[in-house]
Amino acid sequence: MASTIAVDTMSGDQGYKAAVPAALRSLDKHPDLSLILVGDQALLERALAEHKVKTSDRLVIQHASQVVDMWEAPSKALRSKKDSSMRVAVDLVHTGRACACVSAGNTGALMATARFVLKTLPGIDRPAIISPIPSRNGHTLMLDLGANSECTPEQLFQFAVMGSVLASAVHGIDNPRVGLLNIGAEEIKGNPQIQWAGRLLSGSKLNYIGYVEGNDIYVGDVDVVVCDGFIGNVALKTSEGLGKLIAQFLREEFSRHWGTRLAGLAAMPVLKSFRKRVDPRNYNGASFLGLQGIVIKSHGDADAIAFHSALETALLEVKNSVPRRISNLLASVLGEDAEAIQ
Amino acid sequence: MASTIAVDTMSGDQGYKAAVPAALRSLDKHPDLSLILVGDQALLERALAEHKVKTSDRLVIQHASQVVDMWEAPSKALRSKKDSSMRVAVDLVHTGRACACVSAGNTGALMATARFVLKTLPGIDRPAIISPIPSRNGHTLMLDLGANSECTPEQLFQFAVMGSVLASAVHGIDNPRVGLLNIGAEEIKGNPQIQWAGRLLSGSKLNYIGYVEGNDIYVGDVDVVVCDGFIGNVALKTSEGLGKLIAQFLREEFSRHWGTRLAGLAAMPVLKSFRKRVDPRNYNGASFLGLQGIVIKSHGDADAIAFHSALETALLEVKNSVPRRISNLLASVLGEDAEAIQ
Repeated sequence: MASTIAVDTMSGDQGYKAAVPAALRSLDKHPDLSLILVGDQALLERALAEHKVKTSDRLVIQHASQVVDMWEAPSKALRSKKDSSMRVAVDLVHTGRACACVSAGNTGALMATARFVLKTLPGIDRPAIISPIPSRNGHTLMLDLGANSECTPEQLFQFAVMGSVLASAVHGIDNPRVGLLNIGAEEIKGNPQIQWAGRLLSGSKLNYIGYVEGNDIYVGDVDVVVCDGFIGNVALKTSEGLGKLIAQFLREEFSRHWGTRLAGLAAMPVLKSFRKRVDPRNYNGASFLGLQGIVIKSHGDADAIAFHSALETALLEVKNSVPRRISNLLASVLGEDAEAIQ
Repeated sequence: MASTIAVDTMSGDQGYKAAVPAALRSLDKHPDLSLILVGDQALLERALAEHKVKTSDRLVIQHASQVVDMWEAPSKALRSKKDSSMRVAVDLVHTGRACACVSAGNTGALMATARFVLKTLPGIDRPAIISPIPSRNGHTLMLDLGANSECTPEQLFQFAVMGSVLASAVHGIDNPRVGLLNIGAEEIKGNPQIQWAGRLLSGSKLNYIGYVEGNDIYVGDVDVVVCDGFIGNVALKTSEGLGKLIAQFLREEFSRHWGTRLAGLAAMPVLKSFRKRVDPRNYNGASFLGLQGIVIKSHGDADAIAFHSALETALLEVKNSVPRRISNLLASVLGEDAEAIQ
């Protein structure tokens, strides 16, 4: 069955310059995929012409006259940008013309728009942002990565349910191990919210393995790491910063003098393969989980390669009918744990 | 003037096996240094004999009959381990026999002991854990790294004052730039505690540069990053986890087959110099700031090289009379900002 994805082509640092080539690559790769490019009609027509591509029934342009600024307040975007590429892309999901949308725009505005237009699934108070993060044996799913800076124990419990569902439904992990991010493995540590969430999870049918610490995200002994959006965002951005620092240090060491540059040449294929393995562009595409629709957030500085990864994530969630499966599995968990989370 | 440091030789994963060689290395390096090795007398005598070293007026053994377990509850350690190597080392600072103490023990127990025995400086509600973290141009000081999982805006303000003082007094940074860790640079982001702390800092004489994000820790455009201990601990442990993952990926890539192993040989000197640059052992030694005395926490899994770094940190703080300088500078800041932080 054909899948249609709405692409916000005007947001993010590179706007249509990243989104259009990424979209064309996805169309080539998936014959059953249709795309709606949302943005300035004239600009998108010129961009397609540059790529020597014409619109078709698989490639449609949907005009949107506004763009949400990267630093615009979510409430302002919601109120005054009703014809923005971001809003129109989300609207297309709401009306059913698209099965999912992808945007590299302002996270706060995209979340506010998605919540307002699509609404949350029954039993979910707040949507959360989830993304795979590379680990020793594959990847770890982590949520919330920044949608909710403060969370109740019940919300953390709901995040655990959603993450667990995504891990099994999309990532094929049987009985995914769920950990609660804390600052120590002992019962005595952490704040009261986390301790209470731990008690809710211990009493649930989820495969809750207890508290995990920051380093466990990368070890691979947990499949879903649950935390509030403040902690998750700091952990994610800290990792990005350290990754860039290490890359720079490696470059500097290999370019000190002719001897090290020669060593760098010899090591080039290995370094390239290492770089490919840790390239954050391969992990681009965070899902807004808990909504009645699929919304994928691409990193703001995504290039075409990274934006393509976000499109792949959207397609994967469409093919696995994520909202429906979450809803079904959630209903079953809610049935058993209704007292705990309501 | 001679400086005396008390060394808890029984704590941490490697106990005296890391502490004793580290201590001997420091004694060799600094002729004006005296050490009190705190721990099991017979065991330490044997350890010194193995190193063919005798006690002297620069190297004294102080017997302690107990050891605080790595996972022992701080309250239990405080109540029932009054003759532990950790407690005796802190007591030696309190009585003035030592200018500082170093321990690789249980962070919670060491903090509880240090607070109980030494007390906080006037104007400081809670001590904080601070450590330098490598950055693009040198290092960034970050606090709190785990002593206080929830903090008031006033406490965050006090951390900013302490970090600022340490940066200028010990690390020689003029007018250190202080940033508040948040999940966005915009005024609208973050929780109310952080927003209020930001207002306190904006009105102070500190060189407050505003909100910073996780990636800024490694960029080098801020000297002191202030956050609560939960966030700080997660950021630190996440970085440790990512660092280890990257090291493993590099090792794996260089050992795939004979070709990559050959490339690894060619790149060996460069990789060694890179490894030295990011080696966490060189950054070992977190300070408990805000106490009436110098207490340095070594990482629990520190080896002799890492433990030696912690001893160096202690000596640096002793030579710079950190508690007195903090107290003096704090009094001047409190004078101006008394209304804000009290």
